[in-house]
Amino acid sequence: MSLLSDVLATLFARQSRKALPPPSERTTQELIGDILSTQGEISGLTAAAQLLDRFAQMGDDEKLAFFDHLAGDLGIEPAKVRAALDAFEADPSAAHYRRFLASAEPARQELARRLNRVPGATTQLVEMRADLLRLIPRSDARARIDLDFRHLFASWFNRGFLVLRPISWESPAAILEKIIAYEAVHAIDSWEDLRRRVEPADRRCFAFFHPAMPDEPLIFVEVALTKGTPGSVQKLLAEDRQALSAQEADTAVFYSISNCQAGLAGISFGNSLIKQVAEDLSAELPNLETFVTLSPIPTLAAWMKEEGIDPAKLDAEALKATAARFLLTAKRADGMPYDPVTRFHLGNGAYVHAVHAGADTSPKGMAESAGAMVNYRYDPDAFVENHEKFAGAQEVVASREVRALVPPPAAA
Amino acid sequence: MSLLSDVLATLFARQSRKALPPPSERTTQELIGDILSTQGEISGLTAAAQLLDRFAQMGDDEKLAFFDHLAGDLGIEPAKVRAALDAFEADPSAAHYRRFLASAEPARQELARRLNRVPGATTQLVEMRADLLRLIPRSDARARIDLDFRHLFASWFNRGFLVLRPISWESPAAILEKIIAYEAVHAIDSWEDLRRRVEPADRRCFAFFHPAMPDEPLIFVEVALTKGTPGSVQKLLAEDRQALSAQEADTAVFYSISNCQAGLAGISFGNSLIKQVAEDLSAELPNLETFVTLSPIPTLAAWMKEEGIDPAKLDAEALKATAARFLLTAKRADGMPYDPVTRFHLGNGAYVHAVHAGADTSPKGMAESAGAMVNYRYDPDAFVENHEKFAGAQEVVASREVRALVPPPAAA
Amino acid sequence: MSLLSDVLATLFARQSRKALPPPSERTTQELIGDILSTQGEISGLTAAAQLLDRFAQMGDDEKLAFFDHLAGDLGIEPAKVRAALDAFEADPSAAHYRRFLASAEPARQELARRLNRVPGATTQLVEMRADLLRLIPRSDARARIDLDFRHLFASWFNRGFLVLRPISWESPAAILEKIIAYEAVHAIDSWEDLRRRVEPADRRCFAFFHPAMPDEPLIFVEVALTKGTPGSVQKLLAEDRQALSAQEADTAVFYSISNCQAGLAGISFGNSLIKQVAEDLSAELPNLETFVTLSPIPTLAAWMKEEGIDPAKLDAEALKATAARFLLTAKRADGMPYDPVTRFHLGNGAYVHAVHAGADTSPKGMAESAGAMVNYRYDPDAFVENHEKFAGAQEVVASREVRALVPPPAAA
Amino acid sequence: MSLLSDVLATLFARQSRKALPPPSERTTQELIGDILSTQGEISGLTAAAQLLDRFAQMGDDEKLAFFDHLAGDLGIEPAKVRAALDAFEADPSAAHYRRFLASAEPARQELARRLNRVPGATTQLVEMRADLLRLIPRSDARARIDLDFRHLFASWFNRGFLVLRPISWESPAAILEKIIAYEAVHAIDSWEDLRRRVEPADRRCFAFFHPAMPDEPLIFVEVALTKGTPGSVQKLLAEDRQALSAQEADTAVFYSISNCQAGLAGISFGNSLIKQVAEDLSAELPNLETFVTLSPIPTLAAWMKEEGIDPAKLDAEALKATAARFLLTAKRADGMPYDPVTRFHLGNGAYVHAVHAGADTSPKGMAESAGAMVNYRYDPDAFVENHEKFAGAQEVVASREVRALVPPPAAA
Repeated sequence: MSLLSDVLATLFARQSRKALPPPSERTTQELIGDILSTQGEISGLTAAAQLLDRFAQMGDDEKLAFFDHLAGDLGIEPAKVRAALDAFEADPSAAHYRRFLASAEPARQELARRLNRVPGATTQLVEMRADLLRLIPRSDARARIDLDFRHLFASWFNRGFLVLRPISWESPAAILEKIIAYEAVHAIDSWEDLRRRVEPADRRCFAFFHPAMPDEPLIFVEVALTKGTPGSVQKLLAEDRQALSAQEADTAVFYSISNCQAGLAGISFGNSLIKQVAEDLSAELPNLETFVTLSPIPTLAAWMKEEGIDPAKLDAEALKATAARFLLTAKRADGMPYDPVTRFHLGNGAYVHAVHAGADTSPKGMAESAGAMVNYRYDPDAFVENHEKFAGAQEVVASREVRALVPPPAAA
Repeated sequence: MSLLSDVLATLFARQSRKALPPPSERTTQELIGDILSTQGEISGLTAAAQLLDRFAQMGDDEKLAFFDHLAGDLGIEPAKVRAALDAFEADPSAAHYRRFLASAEPARQELARRLNRVPGATTQLVEMRADLLRLIPRSDARARIDLDFRHLFASWFNRGFLVLRPISWESPAAILEKIIAYEAVHAIDSWEDLRRRVEPADRRCFAFFHPAMPDEPLIFVEVALTKGTPGSVQKLLAEDRQALSAQEADTAVFYSISNCQAGLAGISFGNSLIKQVAEDLSAELPNLETFVTLSPIPTLAAWMKEEGIDPAKLDAEALKATAARFLLTAKRADGMPYDPVTRFHLGNGAYVHAVHAGADTSPKGMAESAGAMVNYRYDPDAFVENHEKFAGAQEVVASREVRALVPPPAAA
Repeated sequence: MSLLSDVLATLFARQSRKALPPPSERTTQELIGDILSTQGEISGLTAAAQLLDRFAQMGDDEKLAFFDHLAGDLGIEPAKVRAALDAFEADPSAAHYRRFLASAEPARQELARRLNRVPGATTQLVEMRADLLRLIPRSDARARIDLDFRHLFASWFNRGFLVLRPISWESPAAILEKIIAYEAVHAIDSWEDLRRRVEPADRRCFAFFHPAMPDEPLIFVEVALTKGTPGSVQKLLAEDRQALSAQEADTAVFYSISNCQAGLAGISFGNSLIKQVAEDLSAELPNLETFVTLSPIPTLAAWMKEEGIDPAKLDAEALKATAARFLLTAKRADGMPYDPVTRFHLGNGAYVHAVHAGADTSPKGMAESAGAMVNYRYDPDAFVENHEKFAGAQEVVASREVRALVPPPAAA
Repeated sequence: MSLLSDVLATLFARQSRKALPPPSERTTQELIGDILSTQGEISGLTAAAQLLDRFAQMGDDEKLAFFDHLAGDLGIEPAKVRAALDAFEADPSAAHYRRFLASAEPARQELARRLNRVPGATTQLVEMRADLLRLIPRSDARARIDLDFRHLFASWFNRGFLVLRPISWESPAAILEKIIAYEAVHAIDSWEDLRRRVEPADRRCFAFFHPAMPDEPLIFVEVALTKGTPGSVQKLLAEDRQALSAQEADTAVFYSISNCQAGLAGISFGNSLIKQVAEDLSAELPNLETFVTLSPIPTLAAWMKEEGIDPAKLDAEALKATAARFLLTAKRADGMPYDPVTRFHLGNGAYVHAVHAGADTSPKGMAESAGAMVNYRYDPDAFVENHEKFAGAQEVVASREVRALVPPPAAA
């Protein structure tokens, strides 16, 4: 299996290792014009490579100017759109529809598609969007060009084009160093720490990749195979723990899930990732009965502060009860759960399975949630029902045990 | 190299071999509604698989009804577009732009993207478009929905996502049988005939593939390595010919190029294919000096008939002169060359290098062009200049030798 | 899985595609001397490549002369061996043992090892032994040099170095054509016939390969997945049969097993092949309960003739009884079963499961066994016991049903 | 290319990941008896797996007892050998030759071949020999059994069966950690240090692997691509150096070559490794003109001490002259060069190209050679001639420049 992953990497890597294009004397706007001109691919491809190279070397000011050009000059022209729309409404012929489609799509989308013809361009375009998000706040009107990136990327990074690849100690070092760099939940200190997460028989890691970005994981999940549901991430990751054989395990614990690409923010893969990994592990290890997360509650401490609850005064049981109450009842103005991790997993059809005190005693864990963590459980038989309850009545589904921790609301 | 190709095939093949979804009791329109509902991926993915399966089993009448539903109910709503456009023009904020983009894109595009989340769906969507093109003439207003397919496919099958794979006798039989089936120019009779085209040291074949359709070549080109430029396809393909070693060859002859997917009509790959193959062959075989086609002239006989020229009365030299005159001077109403093959190669920056009589003596060759063929030459140093002449003044660039066959036009 | 196979092929293929060595002016004996001289690898490697090339172009007379040189001049020298043995017996030191080993191994073994340093040489050495077996009868004293080949090949083709590869319609055409060529039991007529054996969901094929001969299957087995044990090979291979899904099958039928390399005669792989295939299929398809062959009885007709039994006078039941009696009681002088196929499968721990009349109605089947065939069953739980009975008392273990067909021997 | 390497690893890795055999109640000698009995593979294979497992868990005393059993009971029987030899001498028939061969090969060789049928056994047998070499000094008569291991391994690890694999930052971490562990010349401190040796465009690393030990490099060489011949290993490996592009380099420097497997001591691969790497690099980078080592002189300091030369009193030029004199004139009793590295490279056909003072200023470099190093040059055109001079007259071939450093010997 790890073979297939390496293969894909190499396959596309081969294609992208090409010489740099000759530098160009043309201005950036002239290069854009060359790329978009209908004179064809021949000179356009060179201009595209030159533009990508030049962008990579721009300072932030120049990048801002570039984005402003995209926003100002390569957008839609309302008058043209209106005229095409009128004609289409009068006569919905194919020719009129073509004209409408052409007018309603800004030139910057076509620009991105043409840039993407250059080998290796996909990675560079994702980085371009990361720059855009970094330089222009979403509240800014100029941020509208991000919607074009997002629209393209949603099409290019469609689930059907992604490949799930296991990450192991057999994976290329060039991939593994990115796992170290991107781990967002429980930091990886060193290669030895990484090895403890991917080499033992009871540890797994999986990532989604796109064929055109074979060296870049898009999102990855770390999994521990255990007997029973764990309630402490420090125990789960202890250096001196004894590994199980995979066959002995009855539970798969998704204890960390990290997005890797700032330039793909808002393009969601996490839902598919957990489900496909659960499916693949089930097929490989029929003894697995339970699929749960061991998740942080990153906003619990902030909420307790708002509520005037002093975590220092809570014993373990009281903290569990408080965490349970928070998870089940604390809502945003729109009725959705307060905690983003809750929103993510409940939105996927999971439910709140158990809460634990003393579960993450790292400084980060203590600061964010006074050490509390939660297991969200993925039960394929209940996905649809859970999801409907959540999507409809915004109900946070929970196990009987967790519900028992939360006193019923006083009668009105 | 052929390794890489096989690998890709296997990689994706693994992902697509999944069980069929359970059959659904919902109507097709209800399934479409489920897929497009915002209730999320969970039930949507099953509905998508069900819809694809159902479509595969529809008769033509049902397919037509399905396309009519796409055309009628899943298009844009002009009033909504106009309102969104007005708001955007008044205040070009990101929020207004988002609303405009959402309104200007028909729901059927989002439907296709969601269908494509199903493993193996890309091939099925390409086949769906093939059905559409077969069932609804382009002149029909309902054919406007094809523009949405085309728009999506242009994005999905962007050059940057395609992989060039050599096809050889080491390739999987499952791929080779498709080469036999799709060869459009000089039919392949049998596995032995195929072997003669891909196994000898002086024969090559290359195809573009898309990672999500690894068993389906999109377009392929057959190449003969020769000493000098050949003037007869029968000699080139003779069963008893003696193979050269690749190192002896000075010329690469593109003697057949075939599109494979009816559902990708109008999504152009041919230009890139010839150029990348020429580049790769150059790198591998530095002795290669000349890159030419040995091309049919499929409309020559038809034009001669229009012009009242009886091919039976022409000797070889006269046929060559006629063919040269045809290629250089016969134009459509829009000023473009009469012959589609000429348009294709000149559009790529090639030029007319030589014409031959008695070059394709097969019944098809005799019927189409009285046996005449043409070499278009790809000279990287002259691409841009040739292309500019053609794209600008619609001039059919030709070698001195060919031009000498055509008498100068009489003075006005 | 078929990926892995293709990969291996390509990997080694790459290594062997090297230029030919320059032709040599030296005589064959001089070349052998160069290769064996202790002056080292440098000139030796070129000489080795030259010798292999020269051998490939020799006529049979020259090959015989070459083998005679191996037999006459490159053997052991008894006097030397005796001296070394005496010294070792007097003082079994490492130095004396080294001298003994050196003297007791003929120079032709070292020659073969040195020849094998040339890329691609392993295949050529296997072909060299095929020539040897063809040219020199085993009864000939000169055939002793074959024992050296055999000794080396038993070491090189040790089970631990072989790779089991599935053969499918996804396999390279270059491998598949060899399956067509080597099938020894039920001939494959055409590519379509081959496809029927490897493409349907209920058909499998597996081969052993050696890493240094990646394009050359050593032995392969064809498997049909069925419901119940089949009693007719024509039905099993019928063109118009309906394929099962692999999950529906409860039985795996090994209906053909073919050795591919004449030069590896006597190096046994068949036992391991059947067992490993059975193990792999079990792991993939837990529904499989029964592993049987559908085997010819190639010497039945000859034996019936010896016994004066006229097959034309037997009805189906009588033929079954005769076949059962033959299988269970007909013995060679050494007490082993008369039929070689029986010896092979019983030697592997299988037992006679069922016999069938009208099971192979091809001309070959009628001529060899009047159409009778036999299922040998591989039951992992009974391997050791069956094998001990066979290896010890030479008992042909059979099912109760088969035993019931054979009348008990009359009392003495 | 690195693809192919990873693939091989995965391919065989898959085959070796099997369950452990059940533990056995039989004694070690009984297990050996079971393995060697002619009763066949069936029970023998299980016994072989059990014996390998048991050996892996033995303490040194038990291992010694095991080796003593091999030495004492599984050797040749001189009387039998003599009888077989007599018979063969009287009548050199194939049958007599077979009997002789059988008697002249000790049972422990067949034992090793049968053990090797177990998946993964090759690695374990190599480790078994490493234990043997560690526990029994070569001078010990019991060490004679090592000759049998050596004989088998020379056959199994024949050059024709080895695969050259590039090692890069794309290689599996599981391989890279072994490069860190096995580097014997210039220690690798950390993963970052490793990365500096394999990732930059002007650094390469290659290893030989055996297909049956895909995770275990046998020997590897580290290469720096440079402009001109370097004279300091610290400069070559400086952390802050600027990498060249591979195309700019004119010289390939083999600056470290390390054997990895103690159990393969005496099975020589180094010669082939350097030559094949030089050949492959030449093909990839036609600008490379010079292939040299940057080698330690590990015995220089010891020799200077013998000669009463105090390195502290030598300036750079004097140290160079002393080193040159040492390399060219210091000989062992058998006339071979004093320094083992000199013997290795001269034996391969290289010659002494240049000597440098201040070239390895590490503590190890100062202690061994007062900081001096040497370039041995590999010039394909002079291999044979150099080698003949060295193999014949034991002449240490050197460049004019180096020879000029050494005063001619005084007339007798």
